[in-house]
Amino acid sequence: MSHNTFGHLFRITTFGESHGPAIGVVVDGCPPGLRLTAGEIQAFLDKRRPGQSRFTTQRQEPDTVKILSGIFEDERTGGGVTTGTPIMLMIENVDQRSKDYSEIKETYRPGHADFTYDAKYGLRDYRGGGRSSARETACRVAAGAVARKVIPNVRIRGALVQMGTEHIDRKNWDDAEIDNNPFFCPDAKAAKAWEAYLDGVRKAGSSCGAVIEVTASGVPAGWGAPLYAKLDSELATAMMSINAVKGVEIGAGFGAAALSGEVNADQIRMRHGKAEFQSNHAGGILGGISTGQDVVVRFVVKPTSSILTPRQTITKSGKESDVITKGRHDPCVGIRAVPVGEAMMAIVLADQFLRHRGQVGS
Amino acid sequence: MSHNTFGHLFRITTFGESHGPAIGVVVDGCPPGLRLTAGEIQAFLDKRRPGQSRFTTQRQEPDTVKILSGIFEDERTGGGVTTGTPIMLMIENVDQRSKDYSEIKETYRPGHADFTYDAKYGLRDYRGGGRSSARETACRVAAGAVARKVIPNVRIRGALVQMGTEHIDRKNWDDAEIDNNPFFCPDAKAAKAWEAYLDGVRKAGSSCGAVIEVTASGVPAGWGAPLYAKLDSELATAMMSINAVKGVEIGAGFGAAALSGEVNADQIRMRHGKAEFQSNHAGGILGGISTGQDVVVRFVVKPTSSILTPRQTITKSGKESDVITKGRHDPCVGIRAVPVGEAMMAIVLADQFLRHRGQVGS
Amino acid sequence: MSHNTFGHLFRITTFGESHGPAIGVVVDGCPPGLRLTAGEIQAFLDKRRPGQSRFTTQRQEPDTVKILSGIFEDERTGGGVTTGTPIMLMIENVDQRSKDYSEIKETYRPGHADFTYDAKYGLRDYRGGGRSSARETACRVAAGAVARKVIPNVRIRGALVQMGTEHIDRKNWDDAEIDNNPFFCPDAKAAKAWEAYLDGVRKAGSSCGAVIEVTASGVPAGWGAPLYAKLDSELATAMMSINAVKGVEIGAGFGAAALSGEVNADQIRMRHGKAEFQSNHAGGILGGISTGQDVVVRFVVKPTSSILTPRQTITKSGKESDVITKGRHDPCVGIRAVPVGEAMMAIVLADQFLRHRGQVGS
Amino acid sequence: MSHNTFGHLFRITTFGESHGPAIGVVVDGCPPGLRLTAGEIQAFLDKRRPGQSRFTTQRQEPDTVKILSGIFEDERTGGGVTTGTPIMLMIENVDQRSKDYSEIKETYRPGHADFTYDAKYGLRDYRGGGRSSARETACRVAAGAVARKVIPNVRIRGALVQMGTEHIDRKNWDDAEIDNNPFFCPDAKAAKAWEAYLDGVRKAGSSCGAVIEVTASGVPAGWGAPLYAKLDSELATAMMSINAVKGVEIGAGFGAAALSGEVNADQIRMRHGKAEFQSNHAGGILGGISTGQDVVVRFVVKPTSSILTPRQTITKSGKESDVITKGRHDPCVGIRAVPVGEAMMAIVLADQFLRHRGQVGS
Repeated sequence: MSHNTFGHLFRITTFGESHGPAIGVVVDGCPPGLRLTAGEIQAFLDKRRPGQSRFTTQRQEPDTVKILSGIFEDERTGGGVTTGTPIMLMIENVDQRSKDYSEIKETYRPGHADFTYDAKYGLRDYRGGGRSSARETACRVAAGAVARKVIPNVRIRGALVQMGTEHIDRKNWDDAEIDNNPFFCPDAKAAKAWEAYLDGVRKAGSSCGAVIEVTASGVPAGWGAPLYAKLDSELATAMMSINAVKGVEIGAGFGAAALSGEVNADQIRMRHGKAEFQSNHAGGILGGISTGQDVVVRFVVKPTSSILTPRQTITKSGKESDVITKGRHDPCVGIRAVPVGEAMMAIVLADQFLRHRGQVGS
Repeated sequence: MSHNTFGHLFRITTFGESHGPAIGVVVDGCPPGLRLTAGEIQAFLDKRRPGQSRFTTQRQEPDTVKILSGIFEDERTGGGVTTGTPIMLMIENVDQRSKDYSEIKETYRPGHADFTYDAKYGLRDYRGGGRSSARETACRVAAGAVARKVIPNVRIRGALVQMGTEHIDRKNWDDAEIDNNPFFCPDAKAAKAWEAYLDGVRKAGSSCGAVIEVTASGVPAGWGAPLYAKLDSELATAMMSINAVKGVEIGAGFGAAALSGEVNADQIRMRHGKAEFQSNHAGGILGGISTGQDVVVRFVVKPTSSILTPRQTITKSGKESDVITKGRHDPCVGIRAVPVGEAMMAIVLADQFLRHRGQVGS
Repeated sequence: MSHNTFGHLFRITTFGESHGPAIGVVVDGCPPGLRLTAGEIQAFLDKRRPGQSRFTTQRQEPDTVKILSGIFEDERTGGGVTTGTPIMLMIENVDQRSKDYSEIKETYRPGHADFTYDAKYGLRDYRGGGRSSARETACRVAAGAVARKVIPNVRIRGALVQMGTEHIDRKNWDDAEIDNNPFFCPDAKAAKAWEAYLDGVRKAGSSCGAVIEVTASGVPAGWGAPLYAKLDSELATAMMSINAVKGVEIGAGFGAAALSGEVNADQIRMRHGKAEFQSNHAGGILGGISTGQDVVVRFVVKPTSSILTPRQTITKSGKESDVITKGRHDPCVGIRAVPVGEAMMAIVLADQFLRHRGQVGS
Repeated sequence: MSHNTFGHLFRITTFGESHGPAIGVVVDGCPPGLRLTAGEIQAFLDKRRPGQSRFTTQRQEPDTVKILSGIFEDERTGGGVTTGTPIMLMIENVDQRSKDYSEIKETYRPGHADFTYDAKYGLRDYRGGGRSSARETACRVAAGAVARKVIPNVRIRGALVQMGTEHIDRKNWDDAEIDNNPFFCPDAKAAKAWEAYLDGVRKAGSSCGAVIEVTASGVPAGWGAPLYAKLDSELATAMMSINAVKGVEIGAGFGAAALSGEVNADQIRMRHGKAEFQSNHAGGILGGISTGQDVVVRFVVKPTSSILTPRQTITKSGKESDVITKGRHDPCVGIRAVPVGEAMMAIVLADQFLRHRGQVGS
């Protein structure tokens, strides 16, 4: 994988900065003959789009996707189908307001990539974070919509399970609640409490982190591979490649350290002629290969560093300074990471499916 | 990356099963002109080797490495130097005892890869876990010794920070203690207590998990890349590709969820004409690129499923059964993962260094 | 390399069909800090653009390139510079005339990719050849303009050395003539004769093939690598990946079969303190690595199959049929392949340079 | 592809120098469940082995292959089968005679890689050419034997069609003759004449080049891909990656330049309900994708530079010198390239088959 490409047989290559004319993604290796419309992709982008509640940035980006290649309008099928050639999805930037950022041109915001981009490249596009902006995740969501078409029997569901210091109560988990609140929270009671909590964070000009859990159901046993292409290893790199993510775990994850081998190893029984695991500490993956259970991954999004409290920093020329980040920001960027995590799950699984089919034949 | 290859410019390809004639690794892309001897590699292998205390498997493998290619004995330099061509490192298997495994030939051990290998490939080499055996990690350690030569100014140090339910006290951290106990534990007091704890686990025929922390000092600011080649993303896939690892985090990691943006963002001051961060929640990485601080990664190793308590499972032919795992196993496989984690850190950094030098020139 | 990506550290990913809204290329891995303007890229595209003489297709495509990302307008430098992030270059399609192609929707044109695309994908975008159109080569030319910036001391020059049955006389070679005729022909006398020759071909509704020679001067000794990344091997795949190319050779090429070892091996003398080869049968490459001499590659472009003589073929539904290709086509597509070959040379060398610098350090 | 790895889903990684302890290849991505024995691989190696007639080097290498991993002896199937994990094939070097090479330690042999390896790496393993030795091709032949198992319905046949200045007469082509002479020559009459011709070359201490043609029958329509993964493009890089190869062509190849579009485009008729091409100028590939006809590739091997006539050269320290190459060499190394070309054809096709199956599903 190069800097801006992810995947092997199903591959995405993204481009674009926060404040350039457009961002986009080239999806290569998609199987031919899949029906795909811009509207289907747009539905996923709309879930990620900012400005939908008071809890996300007020930046107004319609994030309208255009399909520039790889789909053929076939009159016989009455709609667009993939041709097997690269699918280019473009999203034009419309609400750029470059002037908001002029004052941080010389100043490194703590917790941002300003310092490191300059250290690496000797220059940076400081407008809206340039390439380091979370806008890039819109490309992932668009590509994820294509990936879902490749694995139609897999159902992927993301949810926020922790916001700042607040956790859900897993006893209250209800998938149907996830779309009923502005947090993708599966616990209706927690979601209610989180409104006040996040209002407090927002009004203080502060921010908080979050933990997202993404589950894929319907993955057959056998996808993945040993070692360097372990399904868990590829999910780890996929999730950790999202902006602001600083940790990834599968199944019992870090909790497994404190479990005994007796508890952690999922026992197996037969049911209706098939293997049935009695628990899922493995998160649906053993030896890097799917077990047929739900694939479960969690990742943590750090609190955004765009806050209103002055923080100590330095300038490009080496002067000490203080900085606050004005402008329109998310008090909890983790919320909008939920559809992004779903997309990355879809992309990893689509790629693993195609590679499995290539090597093993079905 | 393919199933058995890791890295881009500095690449490793491993092969071999637990009970075949040998395992090994081809290291490709190593810069020329580096002095390297088998003895230097052996020193790292010896740290990983089993059977050195009562706390690791009693399997006796000398794990003697042979260099089969890529090193030239130059009389002018008076020793072996890398030539820039592939370095092949081979370790012969000597203590195989295949008969130990005959009874699990048809039975899927819970928590092991038996079930999933069969699901994927339709067959498996059941002797000692075949390709899924932790013996593969010896190849990583050998390759890591080469990687360290590529980045001589970087110091890499791994340590066990949690064993089962027991944690170290970070106030007691002393690097010098790490090699003074059989656990790679930096806290002498904790190490003492862990002896009794792990004896208990071992005598019960049980097992426990562990958390390993690996730190790299001396990494200059600027290594890594945005997005899909983020330094944190590559560390995540590197660590998660190790057998039994189920979670990876960078810096504050999952703890960052509960931090405020004010606390999490590391402030910067000038010191001796250089940027100095006031804390290291970022784990030495911002925007996927190194900051010049210590790079800090932690990963969790699940408790091995090779335990003496009978567990419910099924056979290849779909019959319900119980299984216990006899033979020689580690009560805490996480201990021997410490040098493996160090090696993967070295491999990721060596590869990122070469790619950085390729793109940016120094 | 995947289907639509070429290169390792310097990588291009192209997308787009002949009759979609746009084609384009994402250039990833470009070093930062290089000045680059759309005008500089446009100059190379203009050389490839059709409709500039009666000897190329009359399709009118302005082929105007837009830079959508990866370039930052820096007021201090007074112009655009590369940032090290992906450079997206887009060319909108304006002269599509889809209806021209309606009749070949069901009929496989001999010598075209119609039959094989259907065999592979089960469907195809038949408008203008879809993805198999030579329009894709505009993306290569645009990317090549970026690549040249990476290797500013290398001078790349392509020329047509054979058109149909007609050859140049190498004694007449004059670089200055190449841009003085519509054929990129270095032999003024031959160029004159070729006008009548190609008029004959064109008026007969026929077509002819061509051989292109591309030379790179100023490549230092040491670029390239042994075996699977041999400089000649990468030039071979680069040139053969261009539409309609069916052969590639380096230096003496196929002629080397009939040479003796004495003649073929280029002798070496010292001159001004440096190695100087006495001939260049090796085409500037020994053991896959550049010698410091001119790198010389030749490739053959087959005659286009878009001709006015009816040819036997079959339809998608398996009926026998005859077909002629109406519309606007090139009697000798090889002419426009000259700037494409130059671009691929630049891309291969830029990528090899960065990889060499990564491994060896300068 | 890195320096020493070739392929995508079916991948080979080779290592080893001419005079080290061993050479070998790791074959990754092979489908599971294929029967494979060392004897089957050995049969192909024996075709390439030197010292079998007076026309090849008298170096005596048994080239005995050992399988170190990836094959499981399954008592139920009564033989070894692939497991889907990496297959490591090792060939020990036994006839090394390092002292033969001591005098060329400081002297660059013209036409060899001595000069360029030093230019790139600053040092080289001068014993027998080190990594640049043609011994590496034994690894390709071994891997090719595995690749053939992946595509059992494809028949691959290589032949020498030109030796030095001598050509076969295609009217005399008889596949059955290829193994009846020491040249893999399909024309019995030519083979007879070549004996005297090559004896002349050999006795003069000279060498000559050769052209090899490799044909694959039974490749279904649909393998390959557009553009950068064109089947012809991958065959080009595969063949050009072989030592001493300086040109590759597909089907009509360079001859296509002089053909008209009418002649070059292969017409299609129906026969027994299937498409049947009336000629094969395309070499079985259109638009980068197989047509179902024979896939035909030719490549040229330059005359070896190991000759007995003194040639002008320089030393490592920049002194002018003359050199002759003593020792045991091939007057026509192209002969032994025949099984190597077959192996690379098998490897490319196996990889393309798996990738096709991955994307398209059958």
